[in-house]
Amino acid sequence: MNGARRPRVGHIQFLNCLPLYWGLMRSGELLNVDLHKDAPDRLGAGLVAGELDIGPISLVEYLHHTEELLLLPDLAVGSDGPVRSVNLISTRPPAELGGARVALGSTSRTGVLLAQLLLADYYQVETDYLRCPPDLTEMLLEADAAVLIGDVALRAQYEAPPRGLVVTDLGQAWREWSGLPMVFAVWAVRRDFAAAHPGVVKDVHEAFLRSRELCLAELDQVAEVAARWEPFDAVTLADYFRRLDFSLGERQVAGLREFARRAGAVGAAPTLPAAGPEWFGP
Amino acid sequence: MNGARRPRVGHIQFLNCLPLYWGLMRSGELLNVDLHKDAPDRLGAGLVAGELDIGPISLVEYLHHTEELLLLPDLAVGSDGPVRSVNLISTRPPAELGGARVALGSTSRTGVLLAQLLLADYYQVETDYLRCPPDLTEMLLEADAAVLIGDVALRAQYEAPPRGLVVTDLGQAWREWSGLPMVFAVWAVRRDFAAAHPGVVKDVHEAFLRSRELCLAELDQVAEVAARWEPFDAVTLADYFRRLDFSLGERQVAGLREFARRAGAVGAAPTLPAAGPEWFGP
Repeated sequence: MNGARRPRVGHIQFLNCLPLYWGLMRSGELLNVDLHKDAPDRLGAGLVAGELDIGPISLVEYLHHTEELLLLPDLAVGSDGPVRSVNLISTRPPAELGGARVALGSTSRTGVLLAQLLLADYYQVETDYLRCPPDLTEMLLEADAAVLIGDVALRAQYEAPPRGLVVTDLGQAWREWSGLPMVFAVWAVRRDFAAAHPGVVKDVHEAFLRSRELCLAELDQVAEVAARWEPFDAVTLADYFRRLDFSLGERQVAGLREFARRAGAVGAAPTLPAAGPEWFGP
Repeated sequence: MNGARRPRVGHIQFLNCLPLYWGLMRSGELLNVDLHKDAPDRLGAGLVAGELDIGPISLVEYLHHTEELLLLPDLAVGSDGPVRSVNLISTRPPAELGGARVALGSTSRTGVLLAQLLLADYYQVETDYLRCPPDLTEMLLEADAAVLIGDVALRAQYEAPPRGLVVTDLGQAWREWSGLPMVFAVWAVRRDFAAAHPGVVKDVHEAFLRSRELCLAELDQVAEVAARWEPFDAVTLADYFRRLDFSLGERQVAGLREFARRAGAVGAAPTLPAAGPEWFGP
């Protein structure tokens, strides 16, 4: 008999993380975790509050809590160019939004800050912000533009243009502005949990890396299954999954640092320590 | 784009159904269902209330709701002999329980009725009953015997004998009494859902049958993963999984009918129609 408890691991309940879930399933590793599915903002809050041990956390939320968290190497959700599910949807092109109201979707931390940085410094317009639940129609009743992430953002890509709205892919805009990939979410472990259970964290980390390999090999199959139930066809989903970047290599870390630097420069997030981010590992 | 919704499928959150979960994972079929994990009594209530479309339901609960439900062929949780996780735990042997108080675990419908039938007709003792939450120590503070199912019953198999308690395996007792396998739970679909979505039900049914095949081939692996986190070692778990009978063939249906007949004879459950049970299928 043993008294071990499964690590409490967060999982983003958006299509973008479905490939990682697929890999955890197919490998059987799902049985080794107590998986909590939720929106990214709630998962981040849970990790910070100690209700979760390991999990994805929005880059901005991580920057606010580097003292409690270590990053898991080589794992992220980002894109090196268009991401398709982090969008600014507006009644006119971004460069013409001077004086406009922009509604920021409440489930996003990094996407909305990225939008604010881009509007101020790349499109060079001054705008007012309000936070709203992520419903495009409601948001555009109150504002001239909306920042959405996840499945609603992916849907808006198709639904917005016929309504005469402009969709700006913020992964692509960041790439144009900085020349780097954008990292929207990272995987972190609480430092106290990592110190107490390093073996468990190592296993979970390896399970996620294996899951990523497995799902990349089976992306068309994941897309086909998901297309049965989601409002997107298999080709659209496979294309979406392929654009997502689940790695966190040198270029992605450079993108992460650059985002932290630009956000820090305007006081929108704590500056990353010079040696940061700090990693879990030997 | 499509508006299909995943069928709401129940899953028994006990070790006994872990092999079926494993198979759903490994095949990827988990993505095709909206799985609700819970104790069997709550899953049965959910199916009857229309909060679930398909799922396991205790045999007794099914007998009370044959008009709303169809059975999925060849799928059940039962045993042809010892089941190890449906137990009567008593301060003296069952045949000596005349005049005793018996605590019936509140998560069980079929196990507790089986215990009542066996005590009255097989062990031929008259006993008083009370319903309790499934906690062995609490139950034995108020009664001379307790009926437990699931993981707590499996644990009690090991913990009760050193405390001088007698453990009676009710699957084995039924087999001795009737000569037949015992069926504790069946898989059912709501008739209204089956009429509206026959293709979806067929897919879920086939997914479960494939899952059973898959998990039988990988039972040692399931046991090893589960042993990391459960209070049982891999050998114990593999042995437990192998004793469980997930099929519902001719012999099992005969056992189901015989249980319904004996329960009906004492007015403890509605009699099964002569042609029953009614099956989902062409």
